[in-house]
Amino acid sequence: MADPTRIWTAALIVIGDEILSGRTQDKNVSQIATWLNVQGIRLREVRVVADDSDAIVEAVNALRARNDYLFTTGGIGPTHDDITVDAIAAALGVDVEIHPEAQAMLSAYYETRGGLTEARLRMARAPAGSSLIENRMSGAPGIRHGNIFIMAGVPHITAGMLDSLTGKLEGGLPVLSATIGCWVAESEIADLLGATERAHEGCQIGSYPFFREGRTGANFVIRSVDAEGLDRCVADLSAGLEQGGWPVVAGGI
Amino acid sequence: MADPTRIWTAALIVIGDEILSGRTQDKNVSQIATWLNVQGIRLREVRVVADDSDAIVEAVNALRARNDYLFTTGGIGPTHDDITVDAIAAALGVDVEIHPEAQAMLSAYYETRGGLTEARLRMARAPAGSSLIENRMSGAPGIRHGNIFIMAGVPHITAGMLDSLTGKLEGGLPVLSATIGCWVAESEIADLLGATERAHEGCQIGSYPFFREGRTGANFVIRSVDAEGLDRCVADLSAGLEQGGWPVVAGGI
Repeated sequence: MADPTRIWTAALIVIGDEILSGRTQDKNVSQIATWLNVQGIRLREVRVVADDSDAIVEAVNALRARNDYLFTTGGIGPTHDDITVDAIAAALGVDVEIHPEAQAMLSAYYETRGGLTEARLRMARAPAGSSLIENRMSGAPGIRHGNIFIMAGVPHITAGMLDSLTGKLEGGLPVLSATIGCWVAESEIADLLGATERAHEGCQIGSYPFFREGRTGANFVIRSVDAEGLDRCVADLSAGLEQGGWPVVAGGI
Repeated sequence: MADPTRIWTAALIVIGDEILSGRTQDKNVSQIATWLNVQGIRLREVRVVADDSDAIVEAVNALRARNDYLFTTGGIGPTHDDITVDAIAAALGVDVEIHPEAQAMLSAYYETRGGLTEARLRMARAPAGSSLIENRMSGAPGIRHGNIFIMAGVPHITAGMLDSLTGKLEGGLPVLSATIGCWVAESEIADLLGATERAHEGCQIGSYPFFREGRTGANFVIRSVDAEGLDRCVADLSAGLEQGGWPVVAGGI
């Protein structure tokens, strides 16, 4: 039987000049992070790199070796700035091939949309040895090669690809979390937070201050893979805050 | 005189479990990217790392060496999960000290807010040899150490710190950009895009497809440091699209 305490990790490479120029607000990090949590996999690191082959190769080789899974988003369309497949093949030291199944999918999709042109056929290219990730949103599939998952940059297409992977990746226990909020400056209760975390092994407490309605407050997110441990930590932290004179808002403010 | 063609680059490390868990949508990447463009500095790479000292040290040492500037966001508050200052000092091989000027700022700020407690004094800690980045939003300043800029995680506080750095960092020519849009599948005009980019040295064309109102379209972002070259590229691409029967929307769709 698998070890239930094993922690499964993933990394994500967001590929695209549009993110680095500030033009586009990335949405894939939070979307993939949230999806991974449900699969029992932790997103451990993210890199955003330009549409630049050397930068992609470096990030792919650094991250695939030290994580169970590596996801990429962006750069798999039909245009000249879509170089992800070539760069990942270069990182893996394999050739790029036309994937016959992808070609068939694209042929079917474009049959009533002007036919499979040379540019569109680019979207059937994959590193040799790949399998496909279904894409119900548009014609071009995502690509899986070993522990690497090559996905779209457009968030709703990525969402469809994640959906088709749901439940198919081996993971560990999902990370559970609970949030409580308080109208308190976090600097007032820094010691309480540290002491509570130390007293509850396996729980992490994150502190997220805010300034709203002219007042200072903070939300505290407690995380653990153990539901009972999580409950105990939340109860202790809540009791400590209430004793200090700060009423606790369950679920956060 | 400085070389006007020199390209100045920056990297950004976003530090925080809350981004990797998907709880918080990062806003600092696009905010800092946009600000850097105006300073004539290109954001070349971003890493998102956990509140983990080894991860921060690795990223800091990799990125500070190969970029003109390194920015970090997150982990500079008063609580136990705020470890950025210690990790960066470790990366630099210097001690952490109480910065006297920061201590004075915090003393003044907290004079009418309950006093400078031990937890709050944590926010005056800095790698030895640092100077401060003004923060008009809250008491705790950002920190500059050589080419490293250590800033807040809360976006509006980061915005204030950027504001106080505006015009103070050496940069090159700002990158100019223009956007045009078209109701066309990008796969139809992939060849035109590639040929137009090749014909205009110094210009990059990014293609960003979308599906809206039941129709397929794309926006094309042309970037260059040369205003005239940019205009010529936009004119040529627009002419090519119009000749193909796709009316161009200036400014994008």
